[in-house]
Amino acid sequence: MPTTTWNRHHILSLADFTTTEYDTVLQTAASFQEVLSRRTKKVPTLQGQVVANLFFESSTRTRSSFELAAKRLSADTLNFAAATSSMTKGETILDTAKTYLAMGTDIMVVRHREAGVPNAIAAEMDRLGVKVSVLNAGDGQHEHPSQALLDLFTICTLIDPASPRLELLKGKKIAIVGDILHSRVARSNIWSLIASGAEVHLAAPPTLLPKLFAEYILEEAGVKNQQFIISSSPTPVRLRSRQAHSPLPTPQLFLHWQLEPALQNADFVMTLRLQKERMTAHLLPSLREYHQLFGITRTKLQLCKPNVKVLHPGPVNRGVEISSELMDDPEFSLIQSQVTSGVAVRMALLYLLGSGKA
Amino acid sequence: MPTTTWNRHHILSLADFTTTEYDTVLQTAASFQEVLSRRTKKVPTLQGQVVANLFFESSTRTRSSFELAAKRLSADTLNFAAATSSMTKGETILDTAKTYLAMGTDIMVVRHREAGVPNAIAAEMDRLGVKVSVLNAGDGQHEHPSQALLDLFTICTLIDPASPRLELLKGKKIAIVGDILHSRVARSNIWSLIASGAEVHLAAPPTLLPKLFAEYILEEAGVKNQQFIISSSPTPVRLRSRQAHSPLPTPQLFLHWQLEPALQNADFVMTLRLQKERMTAHLLPSLREYHQLFGITRTKLQLCKPNVKVLHPGPVNRGVEISSELMDDPEFSLIQSQVTSGVAVRMALLYLLGSGKA
Amino acid sequence: MPTTTWNRHHILSLADFTTTEYDTVLQTAASFQEVLSRRTKKVPTLQGQVVANLFFESSTRTRSSFELAAKRLSADTLNFAAATSSMTKGETILDTAKTYLAMGTDIMVVRHREAGVPNAIAAEMDRLGVKVSVLNAGDGQHEHPSQALLDLFTICTLIDPASPRLELLKGKKIAIVGDILHSRVARSNIWSLIASGAEVHLAAPPTLLPKLFAEYILEEAGVKNQQFIISSSPTPVRLRSRQAHSPLPTPQLFLHWQLEPALQNADFVMTLRLQKERMTAHLLPSLREYHQLFGITRTKLQLCKPNVKVLHPGPVNRGVEISSELMDDPEFSLIQSQVTSGVAVRMALLYLLGSGKA
Repeated sequence: MPTTTWNRHHILSLADFTTTEYDTVLQTAASFQEVLSRRTKKVPTLQGQVVANLFFESSTRTRSSFELAAKRLSADTLNFAAATSSMTKGETILDTAKTYLAMGTDIMVVRHREAGVPNAIAAEMDRLGVKVSVLNAGDGQHEHPSQALLDLFTICTLIDPASPRLELLKGKKIAIVGDILHSRVARSNIWSLIASGAEVHLAAPPTLLPKLFAEYILEEAGVKNQQFIISSSPTPVRLRSRQAHSPLPTPQLFLHWQLEPALQNADFVMTLRLQKERMTAHLLPSLREYHQLFGITRTKLQLCKPNVKVLHPGPVNRGVEISSELMDDPEFSLIQSQVTSGVAVRMALLYLLGSGKA
Repeated sequence: MPTTTWNRHHILSLADFTTTEYDTVLQTAASFQEVLSRRTKKVPTLQGQVVANLFFESSTRTRSSFELAAKRLSADTLNFAAATSSMTKGETILDTAKTYLAMGTDIMVVRHREAGVPNAIAAEMDRLGVKVSVLNAGDGQHEHPSQALLDLFTICTLIDPASPRLELLKGKKIAIVGDILHSRVARSNIWSLIASGAEVHLAAPPTLLPKLFAEYILEEAGVKNQQFIISSSPTPVRLRSRQAHSPLPTPQLFLHWQLEPALQNADFVMTLRLQKERMTAHLLPSLREYHQLFGITRTKLQLCKPNVKVLHPGPVNRGVEISSELMDDPEFSLIQSQVTSGVAVRMALLYLLGSGKA
Repeated sequence: MPTTTWNRHHILSLADFTTTEYDTVLQTAASFQEVLSRRTKKVPTLQGQVVANLFFESSTRTRSSFELAAKRLSADTLNFAAATSSMTKGETILDTAKTYLAMGTDIMVVRHREAGVPNAIAAEMDRLGVKVSVLNAGDGQHEHPSQALLDLFTICTLIDPASPRLELLKGKKIAIVGDILHSRVARSNIWSLIASGAEVHLAAPPTLLPKLFAEYILEEAGVKNQQFIISSSPTPVRLRSRQAHSPLPTPQLFLHWQLEPALQNADFVMTLRLQKERMTAHLLPSLREYHQLFGITRTKLQLCKPNVKVLHPGPVNRGVEISSELMDDPEFSLIQSQVTSGVAVRMALLYLLGSGKA
């Protein structure tokens, strides 16, 4: 493992991640990726530590990915699933978290359908003065940091497998397509991609990407003193953040209500899962019309750079966000690589949070 | 680990636990508590043994606590949850247990909503002449021995961390408050506290603490040839067990239909979880009225000794059994310590049952 | 472990298993049975490998048996249960499998209520050119190979504990009784027993054993170039497979619509679980009548050889397929031995699939 100074105690959001932090995660994940290619894929790093997966919202892939990451670090794991839990007995979320704290949990991996729950648990742990770390595994429509970090790792490793680092994305054009308004994955990705100096193009129907979204991003970013340009197409709205003096490269975020300008010369296309319940909320026309307008196909990819790659956080609705044939095409699809990267990146995160303990 | 002679093969009830057995559990738990404070919290004691958690009734905290205890002893664990099991296919409970026996289970941790199920499984195992041990993790309204033992450990460790033992409670006044009639936790605690020589004061509304309860306890205790005094307040009923010649100190159990006489000069207050379904059964007025009459608050604690401590088995209905501010007050609340003690005590129980095997 | 050449990459069906393969499984299981009798029941064989239990249909005993087998080989295990999974989010089964592949799974143990799902996953893995193995843990009414192999191991070990092998069953009369039409266990058992040279007698009411079933078996077997005689009693239908030149001994399969001719001089009686939903489909009279006609009791066993033994894959409906007293009679019942054999046989299967990897 790279020797490094890692000072972050919880991983709740990427909004204030520094370049050094991104690079530390990428390098640590790369060294674990190497471990995973060995015959014996386990390391004793977290032996005797307890990782509790507190999944108040059900999940297969994310929970399994964290569980496997923890086991490969030789940690003991506890799985909490809300469905069979005391939640039905009226216990508060903070009390559940404190119960796992008292049992001796070192790292809590928290998923909840409400934004802010991991932050609330982390704040309570800090208030109590205990060393336990909280890792946000997806909270409502807020953030999903480990997903964005594995996306970042997948892309950077593709460009330079030996030395994945944030600056590799400088100047790249990256399109994020789909239900951006409701996507915690999109939010976390926006922070990491902007930090890298990539050009980030968001594309969605207006109901899933309202102009107010730009202001939300500006406000969040402004707090971190980042300089910003958001251009909205085809409408000529143009917003600029007033804060300056950031050591980061000038980031740029573009909003589009049509797919084509986002795909034009894109290096990477990130598609987002479409929650089918958006339909019933009248935010969308039919799935078929959605696929025609915003679904990614090989034909539409001809607008992009020739070696464009497509990502999706999964699970995929085949034929909705992405055509079935494209999903299975190893020339374009990074979807399987993302899952593999997920284990290495989550090992890195657990390692960085856990290695300072005990 | 202390070298000791432990002859009990199953842990089903505390009604016939001896002083030596209590002290062995307390000392063994203390040595595991010390293990848990080390950097590497695992010991190889039960390596290769299988602990099966047969939870016919769902549970988060108790199952996680046993699972973690087993893992820290390096045992392999199997989790059975009734919801997703063959139970729906009509298999009997004993057949399920025998299936886990045949797979090679060494210790079965059993929870069931019906009283007596762990005893029935243990009897079947004995009839078959096999070495597997059964540990009652809560059966109906009967007993919950590991909870009472962790309560005992929590209190004794507070009094003498270096050497927790039963006699430390001699002469202490301990109030148990709440839904005593339906509480397996209360029943198990009554046995351990009486055995210690503490003065045990039960307080509840008459619907949750009928006079017949005293006769039940006397009858159970009588079988074990224990001497007994039960005084009922404010009504002047006074019962006395006829059996005498017990080597134990004269135990005393008091029943109260009001909170105040139980709290008066108490050293410890044990609150019990109120099942909300008691309301619909017309056993209770409103939750608010219950809290006013029997809920524990800082104000009511002024009746107790100045350094009184409060326990609760969890999960807590904040503002019902106990006020929210009191629950979070480390000066009075032992609730978090109880959870931590739970892992050490359950390691001790699994160790004592398992170390004689194989 | 016996050193052996094992070339099968997936275990999906027993229809084309060779004598050598059966014997390799039996010998390997025997050596693991010996490991399980030691104090330390674990071997490091699959350390660092990942066994994913993909149970799209719920199960207690089979999942626990595979999980324990994997843990005793020191593999890491991931449990997927459809109820709490992304399945509800519309992901396809193959995409779920590919997600577990991408996480680094080495062996997938798959159960599904639809026949053919494990085959489809295996075909997809082969198409992708990856090394992951698929083990069918029960698919619809198709096959349940590990159950038939553990039945085989149970019987062969009884005859020669030191050296269980297929030829031990040559000339033995084995009755399979019950809901044969809907039983994946029966199908897998038919292949292994026919391959052994045993005489296999199927007995069931006509609704659960239609004449067409014989043609299905002939057709399946014909593909494998096996010679075959099926006699149907009491009706005089007699079918003969045309293919010949098999190196296997001439196998014989008999269909009976009454119990008695199947039991006459039988060495082993395999009973099958009766799904209670068959009743509502009007395939059966009352459970009581079914038990009278086809339920196995001590009295009916008097038709068999004196040292006859009875098997059942579990979970048992006591008093339906088999009388309660017979089930518990160690002189006749092998039901507990089957469960114990299950862990050893599944260790063998995981070992044979996994030892060639990495």
